[in-house]
Amino acid sequence: MRIVVLAGGIGGARFLRGLKQAAPDADVTVIGNTGDDIHLFGLKVCPDLDTVMYTLGGGINEEQGWGRSDETFHLKEELAAYGVGPDWFGLGDRDFATHIVRTQMLGAGFPLSAVTEALCDRWQPGVRLIPMTDDRVETHVAVELDGERKAIHFQEYWVRLRASVPAQAVVPVGAEQAKPAPGVLEAIGEADVILFPPSNPVVSVGTILAVPGIREAIADAGVPVVGLSPIVGDAPVRGMADKVLAAVGVESTAAAVAEHYGSGLLDGWLVDTVDAASVERVEAAGIRCRAVPLMMTDVDAAARMAGEALTLAEEVRTA
Amino acid sequence: MRIVVLAGGIGGARFLRGLKQAAPDADVTVIGNTGDDIHLFGLKVCPDLDTVMYTLGGGINEEQGWGRSDETFHLKEELAAYGVGPDWFGLGDRDFATHIVRTQMLGAGFPLSAVTEALCDRWQPGVRLIPMTDDRVETHVAVELDGERKAIHFQEYWVRLRASVPAQAVVPVGAEQAKPAPGVLEAIGEADVILFPPSNPVVSVGTILAVPGIREAIADAGVPVVGLSPIVGDAPVRGMADKVLAAVGVESTAAAVAEHYGSGLLDGWLVDTVDAASVERVEAAGIRCRAVPLMMTDVDAAARMAGEALTLAEEVRTA
Repeated sequence: MRIVVLAGGIGGARFLRGLKQAAPDADVTVIGNTGDDIHLFGLKVCPDLDTVMYTLGGGINEEQGWGRSDETFHLKEELAAYGVGPDWFGLGDRDFATHIVRTQMLGAGFPLSAVTEALCDRWQPGVRLIPMTDDRVETHVAVELDGERKAIHFQEYWVRLRASVPAQAVVPVGAEQAKPAPGVLEAIGEADVILFPPSNPVVSVGTILAVPGIREAIADAGVPVVGLSPIVGDAPVRGMADKVLAAVGVESTAAAVAEHYGSGLLDGWLVDTVDAASVERVEAAGIRCRAVPLMMTDVDAAARMAGEALTLAEEVRTA
Repeated sequence: MRIVVLAGGIGGARFLRGLKQAAPDADVTVIGNTGDDIHLFGLKVCPDLDTVMYTLGGGINEEQGWGRSDETFHLKEELAAYGVGPDWFGLGDRDFATHIVRTQMLGAGFPLSAVTEALCDRWQPGVRLIPMTDDRVETHVAVELDGERKAIHFQEYWVRLRASVPAQAVVPVGAEQAKPAPGVLEAIGEADVILFPPSNPVVSVGTILAVPGIREAIADAGVPVVGLSPIVGDAPVRGMADKVLAAVGVESTAAAVAEHYGSGLLDGWLVDTVDAASVERVEAAGIRCRAVPLMMTDVDAAARMAGEALTLAEEVRTA
């Protein structure tokens, strides 16, 4: 079975770990969000790709969900001593190596997809990880700060400001001109199932879908497309998805996110059991819906969620 | 008193620490060797400049004489795990920060001299540290390896091969086209004394002198130029200076190094007491010479050596 997953960071990575357990023989291709990529200290940092790679490759810091295990922060301390910022982005000594290798390879002319493949040669994530695009896309967030409206990098909004001010708009800068990375459209075209994990529907899955050609390829693939709600009981399971949902005019409910994707794209949708009352509303929108436990408390829970998603996909297929 | 010192790495740095103790009120300008600079992992590394900066700024690893104190090597471990080399150059996590800041500033268009000044803002070395040039100069060493003659970077010869094969030639690539960095010729022109610490006469002091204009400015400065022998008892005090001296046809003795600099450049020369017999030969070459203890066993010993150099300079001045 060939499965394509559109993944953001922590939620996507943990879901993928469950999927590998639920479907160990599946051929999984992950299309990773690169809209949260950022240049820091002259280095190209790809937080979502790395979170997927580290999580599936056994190098993740389990507690925080991002960054490396057994990490130290001496380099960051020294940068601060030099007065060189930003200081709000937590790059550890081990993690820096990934960004140094990536930056050096990009500088030598390799596209990000080839660099990601080379990095994965070490981590052996057990999936094929492809960035959504080799082109530069950076998600910017329009906010009002100190009485002034300005656009800041998504990471500055998310990590530095902790989404503490309203997002007035979320713009994946460069997405319109971006092309899907080599292999992305092919993987979608050959997929048996396409899954949207409980990743952020705006700045993770939404950014991937903003690359021209990807949304269309998924809609036209003719295979079940099933998603899992990142909103449980009207609140994001983790992160601050409600902040960016508001920016695109979507209420922070499991049903509203399904409607936001729409029946033109989505065939099936899983909501949490606490949101069972919304099943009817989602199905009224033309999307098959089931209520199952959606809290990824551990790998087994994530595997059960992945299994439910594959079951729903099979229902869609045979309907 | 304005003192100009031409410095390489460890020997130069330790001498400078002694000089600061011996002449605390002196205005010291250090012209640093950049011929051993190397690009590693896409980063610009300036080993000699950093050794001076860390040593005088209190951040040096005292035992090894280079690199940072309280250092860890997690980033380097990770680079090795990625299979990205070279693995023979010991960059620590704290040290990496210096190279990242430098590379980012150079990329932003600042010349190396301005970058060095910015880095020294943090370290406060108590001297003015200027790279010999803002232009790229890289010392290469011609060797025979596996039956083939090839030119390798000085660091590869020195650090990876530990100078284990004969150096057939030592070439400061780019030196002929290089210009002295801003402030270098001015400092020489305003100096009261010019000192050559017991640094490597070929790949440290020799490289600085290879930048067109510097040797001439020193020779024409009309002030005492005094050096200290890096060779004691026919052997280098530390390092492998004999290997590169052979490449330029100079025997590994205190007297031969003085003659190599020559009386056109050098007014005074200190040899170690074990080499007292060579005083006569050096003076016959027109260079005033004294035999004093030249082992920098600690800061006090280095300070006594610096004091002796200044005393000899005074003798030269009043002769």
